[in-house]
Amino acid sequence: MQSFTKLKASIQKAKSILCVGLDTDIKKIPNCFESNFDGLLEFNKSIIEATFDVAAAYKINFAFYEQYGSDGFDLLKKTFELIPQNIFTIADAKRGDIGNTSAAYAKSVFDFFKADSITINPYMGFDSIEPFLENKDKYIFLLALTSNPGSYDFQRISSDGKLLYQHVIEKSTSHFAKENLGFVVGGTHIDELSQIRKQVPENCLLIPGVGAQEASASAICEINGSSPALINVSRAIIYPKLEEGSDKLDFAEKVRNSAGNFFKEMQIQQ
Amino acid sequence: MQSFTKLKASIQKAKSILCVGLDTDIKKIPNCFESNFDGLLEFNKSIIEATFDVAAAYKINFAFYEQYGSDGFDLLKKTFELIPQNIFTIADAKRGDIGNTSAAYAKSVFDFFKADSITINPYMGFDSIEPFLENKDKYIFLLALTSNPGSYDFQRISSDGKLLYQHVIEKSTSHFAKENLGFVVGGTHIDELSQIRKQVPENCLLIPGVGAQEASASAICEINGSSPALINVSRAIIYPKLEEGSDKLDFAEKVRNSAGNFFKEMQIQQ
Repeated sequence: MQSFTKLKASIQKAKSILCVGLDTDIKKIPNCFESNFDGLLEFNKSIIEATFDVAAAYKINFAFYEQYGSDGFDLLKKTFELIPQNIFTIADAKRGDIGNTSAAYAKSVFDFFKADSITINPYMGFDSIEPFLENKDKYIFLLALTSNPGSYDFQRISSDGKLLYQHVIEKSTSHFAKENLGFVVGGTHIDELSQIRKQVPENCLLIPGVGAQEASASAICEINGSSPALINVSRAIIYPKLEEGSDKLDFAEKVRNSAGNFFKEMQIQQ
Repeated sequence: MQSFTKLKASIQKAKSILCVGLDTDIKKIPNCFESNFDGLLEFNKSIIEATFDVAAAYKINFAFYEQYGSDGFDLLKKTFELIPQNIFTIADAKRGDIGNTSAAYAKSVFDFFKADSITINPYMGFDSIEPFLENKDKYIFLLALTSNPGSYDFQRISSDGKLLYQHVIEKSTSHFAKENLGFVVGGTHIDELSQIRKQVPENCLLIPGVGAQEASASAICEINGSSPALINVSRAIIYPKLEEGSDKLDFAEKVRNSAGNFFKEMQIQQ
């Protein structure tokens, strides 16, 4: 199945555009989970079980797994396997390199981890992006305007009346089909998000910045309308405040409640 | 020891600025090596043993290992361990993400793999780069002007009389100390390389594009003078043309000859 078709079906199934980010960190998991790889996998499993009926997608942040080397990559693989087959997955890896190297990254993300999509950094240009779409079924999210303060350093450099991130969006939409191409646009830049949404109404926007980074989910949803989008929430769902002595059931309930609240803000019109 | 100090000592020891790139690919290794992880590790070991006295650095391209998942990460770790302690290593991973994520990538590359330096994509700005230099001993190579055709897509966008890659160089040299900051500049852009070399004479340039991508090593060396630099050669060293029936000794000899030829072109004045 085309990843874009799966993405749209996954949103319809969840009735929301909530994407749950698995930024799993051994230093942050609650005491009721063991501080080892089994504990981390159980933590991820618990989150997936508590959220799978409200989540349109899961975004897995590769860095948090790579920090543990090969054991971390093993955990990453097992985490992908825990996600129900009908839910869209994003390899948040922000890769991009010369052609033969990008082809190897594509093999890692699509063939080994079997992700539906990947986040890609556009700096190295189109021949660094194309190998990820050699398989036309796949979907990519190009970094356009990211949610962090550093997005002011280069992404807003102005040229010919347009900012760099606008060049990225404009050039790449002429270069790639809308069935393959989405963009990362931080929810922290609400005016720019509104302008980008109008510019590319049919490409999926992956919108980080809600939760720990404090962007407003309801404001984003109002701007987005019925276009394809995913709003990612990581820390505000997976690390709920727990009372001393909480057990795994308490954790699952808090995760479910927190995801449920975001779900309500991010429900789609049907 | 500071990585930059180790880099300069490593160049002095090798008497050249040759960097050998370990873009190890199971589809390309000669028949005399087994087509499995043991064979890949033996292939890397053979290259390191044939080149360690002429190589100022080894650059390990993460993509070629990640394509095999956790086994590949294991091979990557074992490959780093094969490199003599006094030779400078580059994790060619082209990472970069928001702060807490870049911190996890830094942990992977510096604490787990114990690399001396990493290549970083500047698109997400300074707060995506800073976590890699939380340990002031480390060294980073920011992508400036890459060697591939795609470098014409965004890196040369013009703003305020300067191109994007020039903004990256200018802004980052004011932001980071020269003991921590190098740049990736493709040897395929010889005029721009000359201009960049004059602009940042004290920052190390990591120069890909020689060999398979056909940039001229001697032209680059003439431009570079006595500034810190590394010229990377991957495919033209590690995949020599072998006659039918060649064994591991023949392979090692061809690798040694090829590296020796590049070494001669890249010798430093002492």
